[in-house]
Amino acid sequence: MMSVTVIRYHLSMGRWEPDARGRLAQAAVGLYVERGFEQTTVAEIAERAGLTERTFFRHFADKREVLFAGQDDFQAMFIDAIVAAPVDATPLQAAEAGVNAAAEMFQPRRAWSIERGRVISANPGLQERELIKLAHLKTAIAATLRDRGIGEPAASLTAESAVAVFHVAFQSWIDEANTLTFREIADQSFAALKSVTAGG
Amino acid sequence: MMSVTVIRYHLSMGRWEPDARGRLAQAAVGLYVERGFEQTTVAEIAERAGLTERTFFRHFADKREVLFAGQDDFQAMFIDAIVAAPVDATPLQAAEAGVNAAAEMFQPRRAWSIERGRVISANPGLQERELIKLAHLKTAIAATLRDRGIGEPAASLTAESAVAVFHVAFQSWIDEANTLTFREIADQSFAALKSVTAGG
Repeated sequence: MMSVTVIRYHLSMGRWEPDARGRLAQAAVGLYVERGFEQTTVAEIAERAGLTERTFFRHFADKREVLFAGQDDFQAMFIDAIVAAPVDATPLQAAEAGVNAAAEMFQPRRAWSIERGRVISANPGLQERELIKLAHLKTAIAATLRDRGIGEPAASLTAESAVAVFHVAFQSWIDEANTLTFREIADQSFAALKSVTAGG
Repeated sequence: MMSVTVIRYHLSMGRWEPDARGRLAQAAVGLYVERGFEQTTVAEIAERAGLTERTFFRHFADKREVLFAGQDDFQAMFIDAIVAAPVDATPLQAAEAGVNAAAEMFQPRRAWSIERGRVISANPGLQERELIKLAHLKTAIAATLRDRGIGEPAASLTAESAVAVFHVAFQSWIDEANTLTFREIADQSFAALKSVTAGG
């Protein structure tokens, strides 16, 4: 039994503190809003979370990565939903399944997303990082659509359109005055995209 | 007459060497392809162009800006065409006028654009700069469409769609195997976008 415990300890590195990762992320984004991203140190984040800097660095490479740490999960969820879309789905319907999966993942995190959005709009370097994230997502969606047998330029244009809808819907969803769910806004944005492109 | 000459000299700073700007840009992109962007110095660019470093810095802030120097003109031409579109044009038709104006501007510069594209794909920092350029273009297009009375999210989604078409068409156009004009590819890409979004 001893060795199993030891293995478990190694497998769950950083899990000794209950939800250390979530507490660090909350503390970080709170400090970034209050003091500015540049002005906040990892020591201050750890202190506010009641944890050590060492624990911080077990979870995040640096203070910027706190804001982008969910990207791999987010992209994997988006792509998995496209892969899982019915074989007779149109390219846009497949991509829409990805947006809907992302919308569901984000819905419980609106308060965090609002604060995160505020930090990012205040910092050009973070905006660049966000643009790169969306560019990677586009590339991954286009590749996934090509795997489904979609040709070019349809695959790339569908990927661009889906990320456009996702991005525009996300910005509306984190508007403080908004009362709709991410999914409702995404549905409206897809309808608006179809209306805009049908009108040309 | 003397004072007119002096004024002209100041107005045309850097025009003493015939097309110094064009020669520097050619020399730069040639060296970036041959030696790599990071490895090339401003001194080498000036030497290949048969000019001085001082002349280089009269035209460009640094060696990166050689690749992005046309951005203001490009964006102005794109936006002017949207402003000039007929009042009864749909939002997408107005945006399409912008893409067509850009296509015409780029057409005579294909050889340069191919080399520039090769340099940019080889360098993640330059790719980021390119993404930022396209993000600024989107913001400017959306604002111009709102000035034409288009609401949200239609204005932002039209801007995203137009830049998506522009970007996808540009990549096809600078493919060495391509034999079509930028305008022909842009027309095909708009048709593909409409077909993709109609199919959802």
